[in-house]
Amino acid sequence: MKAIRLSLGERSYDILTDPGILNRAGELLDLDRRVLIVTDSGVPAGYAEAVAHASRRPVVVTLPEGEGSKSFDCYVRLLDAMLEAGFTRHDCVAAVGGGVCGDLAGFAAATYMRGIDFYNIPTTVLSQVDSSIGGKTAVDFHGYKNTVGAFWQPKRVLADPEALSTLPPRQIANGLAEAVKMAATSDAELFRLFEEDDPLTRLPEIIRRSLCIKKAVVEADERESGLRRILNFGHTLGHAIESTEAPNLLHGECVALGMLPMMEEEARGRMRAVLEKLGLPITYEGDPARIAEALTHDKKSAADGIDAVYVDKIGSCRVKKTPVSVLMERYRAVFGGTR
Amino acid sequence: MKAIRLSLGERSYDILTDPGILNRAGELLDLDRRVLIVTDSGVPAGYAEAVAHASRRPVVVTLPEGEGSKSFDCYVRLLDAMLEAGFTRHDCVAAVGGGVCGDLAGFAAATYMRGIDFYNIPTTVLSQVDSSIGGKTAVDFHGYKNTVGAFWQPKRVLADPEALSTLPPRQIANGLAEAVKMAATSDAELFRLFEEDDPLTRLPEIIRRSLCIKKAVVEADERESGLRRILNFGHTLGHAIESTEAPNLLHGECVALGMLPMMEEEARGRMRAVLEKLGLPITYEGDPARIAEALTHDKKSAADGIDAVYVDKIGSCRVKKTPVSVLMERYRAVFGGTR
Repeated sequence: MKAIRLSLGERSYDILTDPGILNRAGELLDLDRRVLIVTDSGVPAGYAEAVAHASRRPVVVTLPEGEGSKSFDCYVRLLDAMLEAGFTRHDCVAAVGGGVCGDLAGFAAATYMRGIDFYNIPTTVLSQVDSSIGGKTAVDFHGYKNTVGAFWQPKRVLADPEALSTLPPRQIANGLAEAVKMAATSDAELFRLFEEDDPLTRLPEIIRRSLCIKKAVVEADERESGLRRILNFGHTLGHAIESTEAPNLLHGECVALGMLPMMEEEARGRMRAVLEKLGLPITYEGDPARIAEALTHDKKSAADGIDAVYVDKIGSCRVKKTPVSVLMERYRAVFGGTR
Repeated sequence: MKAIRLSLGERSYDILTDPGILNRAGELLDLDRRVLIVTDSGVPAGYAEAVAHASRRPVVVTLPEGEGSKSFDCYVRLLDAMLEAGFTRHDCVAAVGGGVCGDLAGFAAATYMRGIDFYNIPTTVLSQVDSSIGGKTAVDFHGYKNTVGAFWQPKRVLADPEALSTLPPRQIANGLAEAVKMAATSDAELFRLFEEDDPLTRLPEIIRRSLCIKKAVVEADERESGLRRILNFGHTLGHAIESTEAPNLLHGECVALGMLPMMEEEARGRMRAVLEKLGLPITYEGDPARIAEALTHDKKSAADGIDAVYVDKIGSCRVKKTPVSVLMERYRAVFGGTR
């Protein structure tokens, strides 16, 4: 069994990445109880059915596909479903899908009866390389991203590479954007793999290496008080773009755009080439005024600026408190100033 | 400065209990930022005003007095207030009031931006002896008690004994019920103080001793996986009674009733005498069918029963998984079977 162990004291857990592992949920997870299975309409129904079949008392909730489901209303819907089915603190929640399912289901698990067991079964590249581990859960609130949430670690993660075979190319590229992000800040060799190889044929390796980067960062800084901020590379501007463009642009596409202004020239050139190769966007024509407005509502913004991540050279990064005005200068330098 | 230190690793904090300490909030807490101050209409307005006066950017929310405010709707109202005032993850929440304010404000702090600093300034006996420390936060959901919540420790607790001077006698007795509970399970000497002295003249000592019992229990079992259950003595039946009787009976009054069926004869006799002396109820004529129904919805109920706390002898206790039918036998033996 290929396992990556996330060591967080009493909150430690394994990420299992064997092909076909989704069909072994019954032996690998404790599903001999009530299990709220959270999936969405874009995930092949067979995945959630496999988990439901392995559960003693499954309750399946299928949300509409898309970021719109990462809402406070859907959070309340999950709480309702658990209360109605008589869930106790000994029951559990399992997410089967992408980051939206995981973030939403994880937050419901974090707060039902003050926290019950949570299993994450990511079925997209994005959630397998990034969002399924580390314990960040959240929902959007009045349209503001991740405003309400909690740190709540899963008990175990099953990341089945076979589940990726049904994904459309755009979704794969969307997920790879986060892997490129981690390579850019922390692993120059992985970045060269993106430059020199065909990433689509190297998915299992890319996923494992990305997970190892994330594991090291989360272990050093579980609650994002320092080092963990490097995972936000591309996300400050990316979230601002996402808040004005969703659902036209996917999360990884917004992160791709958000990385470019935060890099020095040579690194940015290499990044542009990799993003283009993956079919990710490298130009953007949004309204700068709306981006600036979204930045001032960023939950990480303090009076003296936002902790922004810069990559001057591929494979390393630095965090610097940056006023919104400076972020917007960088944004305009790369994307232009008017529509 | 009289401080009781709760040692929970990186989540450690002090409970400060000096008289008049409420007016020193500005020097004892970091209020040089946005501060959501949560109070209720039953708390003298001057208490929240003192904290607001010491805050750089205070936002005061005054909820209607009573358990009804410990609702999911009020939780959303607090989130709205923070979002509207532009709270970031560097801002904080302060509860000024009883257990309702603390539980509700604590849960809002636990989940806004995945958790921001929380200060608790309890102004009732009940919250000073019990609910303000230990990190249990929650709101009721569709009328079911504490169904949605989190463990979220405060950064500091200011328990000002002078704030108790404005409380009506029924509220003081309500809070002392929790102190009697802790004495019954863990401190025979404190129980004798209730039997032999006038508790009203010994409030500061009762509060400090109760806090020390709670401190030891919480330090040993922060997330209520074992020992901490002893704090639930009287609460299994108590919550069931409360869910059918609120707002006619107060929380401590329900706990008082809930303890009696869980004791052996001699201990029960001593308990009855203490409760009567404090003006707490010792008889109850509710509908057993509704109590039984509420018990089956108890969040601690598992298929094989509820972990119920028994006091066979004053000063010690045991926890035993107990089917609802057995709890109801004990209930009927003490309170009778019909209305």
